[in-house]
Amino acid sequence: MVELKGLPGFRDFYPEELAARSFLLGVWKEVARRYGFEEYDGPPLEPLELYTRKSGDEIVQQLYEFEDKGGRRVALRPEMTPTLARMVGARAPALRKPVRWFSTPQLFRYERKQRGRLREHFQLNLDILGEVDVLADAELLAAALDIMRATGLDATQVRARVSDRRVLAAIFRHVGVAEETLEPVYGVVDKLEREPRERLEAQLKNLGLEPQTIAGIFEATQLRGIEELEARFGGVPSVSEGIAELSKYLEHLEDLGVREFVDIDLSVVRGLAYYTGIVFELWDAQRKLRAICGGGRYDELLQLIAGVDMPALGFGMGDVVLSELLRDHGLLPKPGRSLDCFVAWLGADGQRHALRATQALRSAGLSVIFEFRDRRLANQLKSADQLGARRAVILGPKEVEEKQARVRDMSTGAERVVRFDELAATLAAELGDG
Amino acid sequence: MVELKGLPGFRDFYPEELAARSFLLGVWKEVARRYGFEEYDGPPLEPLELYTRKSGDEIVQQLYEFEDKGGRRVALRPEMTPTLARMVGARAPALRKPVRWFSTPQLFRYERKQRGRLREHFQLNLDILGEVDVLADAELLAAALDIMRATGLDATQVRARVSDRRVLAAIFRHVGVAEETLEPVYGVVDKLEREPRERLEAQLKNLGLEPQTIAGIFEATQLRGIEELEARFGGVPSVSEGIAELSKYLEHLEDLGVREFVDIDLSVVRGLAYYTGIVFELWDAQRKLRAICGGGRYDELLQLIAGVDMPALGFGMGDVVLSELLRDHGLLPKPGRSLDCFVAWLGADGQRHALRATQALRSAGLSVIFEFRDRRLANQLKSADQLGARRAVILGPKEVEEKQARVRDMSTGAERVVRFDELAATLAAELGDG
Repeated sequence: MVELKGLPGFRDFYPEELAARSFLLGVWKEVARRYGFEEYDGPPLEPLELYTRKSGDEIVQQLYEFEDKGGRRVALRPEMTPTLARMVGARAPALRKPVRWFSTPQLFRYERKQRGRLREHFQLNLDILGEVDVLADAELLAAALDIMRATGLDATQVRARVSDRRVLAAIFRHVGVAEETLEPVYGVVDKLEREPRERLEAQLKNLGLEPQTIAGIFEATQLRGIEELEARFGGVPSVSEGIAELSKYLEHLEDLGVREFVDIDLSVVRGLAYYTGIVFELWDAQRKLRAICGGGRYDELLQLIAGVDMPALGFGMGDVVLSELLRDHGLLPKPGRSLDCFVAWLGADGQRHALRATQALRSAGLSVIFEFRDRRLANQLKSADQLGARRAVILGPKEVEEKQARVRDMSTGAERVVRFDELAATLAAELGDG
Repeated sequence: MVELKGLPGFRDFYPEELAARSFLLGVWKEVARRYGFEEYDGPPLEPLELYTRKSGDEIVQQLYEFEDKGGRRVALRPEMTPTLARMVGARAPALRKPVRWFSTPQLFRYERKQRGRLREHFQLNLDILGEVDVLADAELLAAALDIMRATGLDATQVRARVSDRRVLAAIFRHVGVAEETLEPVYGVVDKLEREPRERLEAQLKNLGLEPQTIAGIFEATQLRGIEELEARFGGVPSVSEGIAELSKYLEHLEDLGVREFVDIDLSVVRGLAYYTGIVFELWDAQRKLRAICGGGRYDELLQLIAGVDMPALGFGMGDVVLSELLRDHGLLPKPGRSLDCFVAWLGADGQRHALRATQALRSAGLSVIFEFRDRRLANQLKSADQLGARRAVILGPKEVEEKQARVRDMSTGAERVVRFDELAATLAAELGDG
């Protein structure tokens, strides 16, 4: 019989890996709760058109897509935003605005060439819909950054790089880019860190741009900090409005306690076509890994997907890069299981009392495993140790006769006796959350 | 623009439905924790062969299956046990036995005819691997029944129907069924509640069985309770061993505190071919719904899937039937969101202090939403009410000047003032979990 393996690019989560994933999802959910976001979820399988309508037909080559038995073109979800737009759009009039929702879907991509890369990951999606004020932009980034803090990462380890599509557009227009050329210019600028400048210059030239326009584009993308931006373009009326809004945004981030993480960096444009305002990415400070998180304002997508006019903004934060960073900094929880009690027993009477003790201890909220076999006590205690039990409860003939259990502290080895009828309450008080 | 819909048979989980799902998954995880089970997960997409090897090629017509871009035959997982067997099999020598694992996967089925039925559901899978003792069988059923209790259901509302493949086999052999006919007979008996007796009799006759054998089969499946079983077949040596083990099982269930839920019912065989010992199903007491849960011992599956000799037992419990039952009994949590604080403000200074107060309150662990717009206070308080906030924190010009916030208890309308620097600690003490 040939042993079966899982598919390439898919992870098996053994308990140790699952514990790391649960830690991360737990942080996501806890911060989302503190920020007053409600959880939603959609189907992992959606009509293919949901994605092609947003991203064009090229997206198909990156998807797990197929025809189902009913002849429908379907795809495993590669991202959550189209589902969000579909769901919010379908109930737009009834939903209380602003909508504050989050979800932690597993997402799927399949590019033929992508050997050795993961084909699935989990991603926190956190979105605000129905609010145009820049305060909402600040709230969104604050949530992303408070997640960093909640994992234990600080501003020396993680940086937020913030840009603004409207500011970029105003500057690009100012240096001579025509309206219809803006999108392709974003596409080129988005590759700044991955391709040599000469190649990008050639690409910009191919878009029909003059040398001084190209120089202006590069100059703009090198601007760092609101002061540099203000000094260089503050005098250009079409740009200054956006700068004022960015300044307001930074002030809000200061008041929300996360300003120390934030850099203005106009080289960030975010690849996706649908962003319309402030965009941001979170990176490890050394930029050794890929982006931890990316997001921004996408005020026109609901119209495109759901025919509903609703401003929106949100971010996606995957589990893979963030886990890698946390591991590098020793911030993932230590592997190893925890157990409150292991119940050991000897003889038939001991077994019966062990089951009853187990039931009482579990009813009191403790995590308990009892021994299945009539083994030597030393072996049972070895199991208790391997299971990470904090206490062993021992029920042998003597204990049964005296109606009291022997309780062993597995870290110190100290033992004492506790009456049967007081066992659950006593250990719950010692070991419980309370 | 045509509005896009999700696929038929797939659920959108809006926050209200997600809350019900989270409640159920929370109960599953909490009871699994108390029972000392560790969580694992596998990929939602697996090689098709993982399922055909276990269930034969007929299973294909019930699956979401397709060919991926690498030419692999793959399927969305219809059940979790094959993945479990694959994962445990791959690390069998290194894993501490008995393995106690659980998972809560979303599972998928697609039968062409199945109009109007769900094509996905969530299912708790809880399994013990590496233990032959009937104590493990009792532990497994106790876990399933403690989940019922943890949701609020009692023994008047839910019943466990228990049978044993080995006892059934011994009886069937005793009344004249040949070894090779056992499997098809199980298949017929499994339909007892869905098809008329005459049709099943005809099917048994087609298997070549004599009238008195058929009568014996029906008689056996009508046995209820260990006493009836003992009285009718206790004298048959090949059956009495299994009866003794079932008696032991019931005694263990008594000691584990769940005996009151349990009925011996030999009409339960579980459809799947791979069960080898005690099997069980949980049903609503009136049997108005489908089974809530089904499981049992499957000692040979690991061999088949992973080439590993390891006894195993487990159950699957779906979210759909159980949710329906909980809804019928009013045991699902009330819909509606909860929020600790809504922070209202007036004027630019009020806004800045609102953001700072929000940050402090969230850092203290509270869930907080602040107002995005400079609206009339009455409208802001209306939002606080709609959001289910327990407190409104109000920051107007007067409050800012006096460096204290007005705090309104949203249930009573009572207001008081709290100094800025004491706000977070004060409200955390009032509203926090502690």
